[in-house]
Amino acid sequence: MSELRQDPTTKEWVIMAPERAKRPQQTTAKKRAEAELPEWDESCPFCPGNESQTPDETLRIPLANNDPNWQVRVVPNRFAALAPEGSTERREHGSTGRAMDGFGIHEVIIESPFHNTSLGLMSHQQVENVLIAYQQRYNALKKNTKLKFITIFKNHGRESGTSLHHPHSQLVATPIITPYFHSRFDIAQDYHADMGTCLYCDILNEELEKKERIVADTGEFIVLHPFASRTPWETWIIPKKHRASFGLLPASDLPELSRVLKDTLLCLHDVLDNPAYNLMIDTTTTEDEIDPYYHWHIRIVPRISMIAGFEIGSGIYITSALPEDTALLMKQCVIALPETRYPSLD
Amino acid sequence: MSELRQDPTTKEWVIMAPERAKRPQQTTAKKRAEAELPEWDESCPFCPGNESQTPDETLRIPLANNDPNWQVRVVPNRFAALAPEGSTERREHGSTGRAMDGFGIHEVIIESPFHNTSLGLMSHQQVENVLIAYQQRYNALKKNTKLKFITIFKNHGRESGTSLHHPHSQLVATPIITPYFHSRFDIAQDYHADMGTCLYCDILNEELEKKERIVADTGEFIVLHPFASRTPWETWIIPKKHRASFGLLPASDLPELSRVLKDTLLCLHDVLDNPAYNLMIDTTTTEDEIDPYYHWHIRIVPRISMIAGFEIGSGIYITSALPEDTALLMKQCVIALPETRYPSLD
Repeated sequence: MSELRQDPTTKEWVIMAPERAKRPQQTTAKKRAEAELPEWDESCPFCPGNESQTPDETLRIPLANNDPNWQVRVVPNRFAALAPEGSTERREHGSTGRAMDGFGIHEVIIESPFHNTSLGLMSHQQVENVLIAYQQRYNALKKNTKLKFITIFKNHGRESGTSLHHPHSQLVATPIITPYFHSRFDIAQDYHADMGTCLYCDILNEELEKKERIVADTGEFIVLHPFASRTPWETWIIPKKHRASFGLLPASDLPELSRVLKDTLLCLHDVLDNPAYNLMIDTTTTEDEIDPYYHWHIRIVPRISMIAGFEIGSGIYITSALPEDTALLMKQCVIALPETRYPSLD
Repeated sequence: MSELRQDPTTKEWVIMAPERAKRPQQTTAKKRAEAELPEWDESCPFCPGNESQTPDETLRIPLANNDPNWQVRVVPNRFAALAPEGSTERREHGSTGRAMDGFGIHEVIIESPFHNTSLGLMSHQQVENVLIAYQQRYNALKKNTKLKFITIFKNHGRESGTSLHHPHSQLVATPIITPYFHSRFDIAQDYHADMGTCLYCDILNEELEKKERIVADTGEFIVLHPFASRTPWETWIIPKKHRASFGLLPASDLPELSRVLKDTLLCLHDVLDNPAYNLMIDTTTTEDEIDPYYHWHIRIVPRISMIAGFEIGSGIYITSALPEDTALLMKQCVIALPETRYPSLD
């Protein structure tokens, strides 16, 4: 029989139905048509030599001091969903509608000069450059008090919703916090009021004790497949030390985070044959960075199942893989990585 | 400049960014490979002659009395996400996790004996048969007091998440109501407490006055593109008369509903070239069918844009089409339908 599990961080219920993986699929099996991409693409606006096709940089990490070559560039999104000027004043539309200017920041983090790489295949050092860029832009933008919430995310592969191949992430800073996050913060705050502890710290401690959903433990970071993950292979990278905001992670932790992030993405790449995925940095609001109840982490959601009418209509997700099973397969990959950096958890 | 709009029914904010439609797409344009399907497919478990491949029917609408041929069949889903036996008792997993048996009902509504049709292309009479089946199963299952919520939905086309071509809908009845719906009910209840009126009735009245997002007005039903739709071409069919539950719609309204549903889907088919879509019947809980604050309706969400990392990470949706613009194009199609049943709204 399947099981209903409740996500303690959202209170949403998920149907865990591994039997569903056996149902017939009449739709033509989609052979991943990932063409061999070139290292450099003349027509790509993110490739070196085409820097003039993007708006002016907000950040550049050069190859070396005064070297015109770069490792990472951050630029405003040329087709930005939001604009850096505008008012946050609400406009009422009759007694039910409400609107405001599309004010906000929308940037692109170009993760590499190479057109045909991805975070899981880069060097740890290059992934660290990307994380440095994430954090510098986060910390620069949080000073603008009109911006309440900053989302850093990455879409990899066609099924993830990306429109360009060149490896890139995005940052969107908005003047609003969504009910989705209001609700998550409320749940964490209620838990903290009840228990006096951080919900996420308690989840970590329980998972470390049970071990069955832990993929890796690097000392500072835990990789785990959450108890009520909504989709198969959802993976969290969560720091052991309590901090509400990604912006406050000390620079000295970035090398370890870049190593575990690259290795996690490499194992997803190897085990699932280069799946499309979304990666999100899940963090608190810019106004509440040192709160005791929220706990920043990275969420990676492989897009190997579809969101269909039931999920949209009911808010309930059906997943066909148990996190215990997928965590075991991921752990085997991580442990087998060279240099045996990850001790077996058994 | 783009605009941020708040959905009055969910309080979620949506970024309306029509300029985004112009951004370049490097991913290979997907030619819709909708193979010419046969009218009958020997290997399809839903085609006539293969009735033994499905579990026993819970409902059959025969072609005529005592005719062995059928128009609509409802059967339990052979790969059901939930099972009809099981307990609703919660099991605690440590201090944070919670689970229960995967108890519930999961049925398939086979909409036609023909393999190669769809709701938008069937006769009005056949669509009415489908709606009759929806309502009969809804009203039969709501008597089970362990089931709190019934979702009826349809996935059409590969991008909608469907796994079988033969036209079918699904019904899932669950012992839980999700936080997503708790929140929607709370919002409607708060509005009712403040204003003394139904939020959805008020939206309808305002939209009818403004006209700019109304696609059709059939007397009993309104077709509209909502003010803060999260995806382009999202379409609602909403009854003018206040009723919280789809289960309470009188049978005498089904002919008109089937006509407007078929015509709406036909126009989406014609205007968007047979898009994938999800269709959901959005209704109240089975325990609260005559409440004054909720208002059942049909939601159709074409799957022509992707849910990406920003949507998953922030809960904010970006849409690249204004409902005013898409409603106008839909209205032109609807008005041009034969028999000029839909008066121009100008």
